[in-house]
Amino acid sequence: MTATETTPFADNGVNVDALLQAREALTAMPEAARFEWRARCEWIRGTHSRTTVHGFSGLGAEHTHRQAFAFEGDHPEVFASEDNGATPAEMVLAALGACLTAGVAAVATRRGVQLRSVVAHVEGDMDLQGILGIDADVRNGYSGIRVRYEIDADAPRAELEAIIAQSQKRSAVYDAVTNPTNVSVELA
Amino acid sequence: MTATETTPFADNGVNVDALLQAREALTAMPEAARFEWRARCEWIRGTHSRTTVHGFSGLGAEHTHRQAFAFEGDHPEVFASEDNGATPAEMVLAALGACLTAGVAAVATRRGVQLRSVVAHVEGDMDLQGILGIDADVRNGYSGIRVRYEIDADAPRAELEAIIAQSQKRSAVYDAVTNPTNVSVELA
Repeated sequence: MTATETTPFADNGVNVDALLQAREALTAMPEAARFEWRARCEWIRGTHSRTTVHGFSGLGAEHTHRQAFAFEGDHPEVFASEDNGATPAEMVLAALGACLTAGVAAVATRRGVQLRSVVAHVEGDMDLQGILGIDADVRNGYSGIRVRYEIDADAPRAELEAIIAQSQKRSAVYDAVTNPTNVSVELA
Repeated sequence: MTATETTPFADNGVNVDALLQAREALTAMPEAARFEWRARCEWIRGTHSRTTVHGFSGLGAEHTHRQAFAFEGDHPEVFASEDNGATPAEMVLAALGACLTAGVAAVATRRGVQLRSVVAHVEGDMDLQGILGIDADVRNGYSGIRVRYEIDADAPRAELEAIIAQSQKRSAVYDAVTNPTNVSVELA
């Protein structure tokens, strides 16, 4: 029996067959799996910037999104800034929530679980004594992040928990946040 | 002599005096430096989600941004998705660029360097053999990220490099990406 015969069908809008075909194709041609994601951040004024995302490379070719996506970044008024956008720290939480949630939808579909609604509440603790340089023992980033899922679906709690666990296991952003990544910063 | 007397004035739109006052105030009252940033990610369909950022806590109180900021997340058409938003991986690059760029503006102002334009080109390498589960030795996240700054300012190259270095040293997102953070994920 194949997985298709044993797994009930769920339409969550994820094309799981295409993902499985991609996995097969990239197993045979691993160099095509190398992607480069890009963002261009332009300073506007003060702490306000606009970052656009458009082109990327992968599958041995250059690609562009259907349209450019823009992110306004700024600091809030309590930091004497103009609050023209989310803080960069909040963008990290947005990235984490979006990544895990796409994974939940993909894994649920693969397992035949029909989703009705999924909401992730993401919270991160940050002690500003770090970024303000008050206490060298306090880190600049998050001391911890919590993600709490509310899921309405036709599946028992244990199955939903297993879906969330599998999403974590394959999440690019969960990995990027929980494990160190080398970042080089230089002047052109 | 104070720094104000020795440092030339630069108007980059950053209120450095307010930041210095905040540092002084939070040194005296460290519990007020504890912030909680939040994001609410709602699944739309397929890999498409919408994350909103609005409230946060800090300075011992609840706050809201002047408006809610929304982020559309999705996967591109080459992954058989609808490309309704940036990938979560790209959001991480946007967060990093926005954080370092706000820092560049703040540090430059503190050092009396007038900025004319600042652009950060952020690139991240990701081998999809990780997230597709093809090769367990390939990580899900970025194998490396590069940030390249183009800065037009009234300062010698060495001073701009020092500003970039100081921005890294105090960046919340640079820390979050380069160092591990504990993330808990649970079903409500």
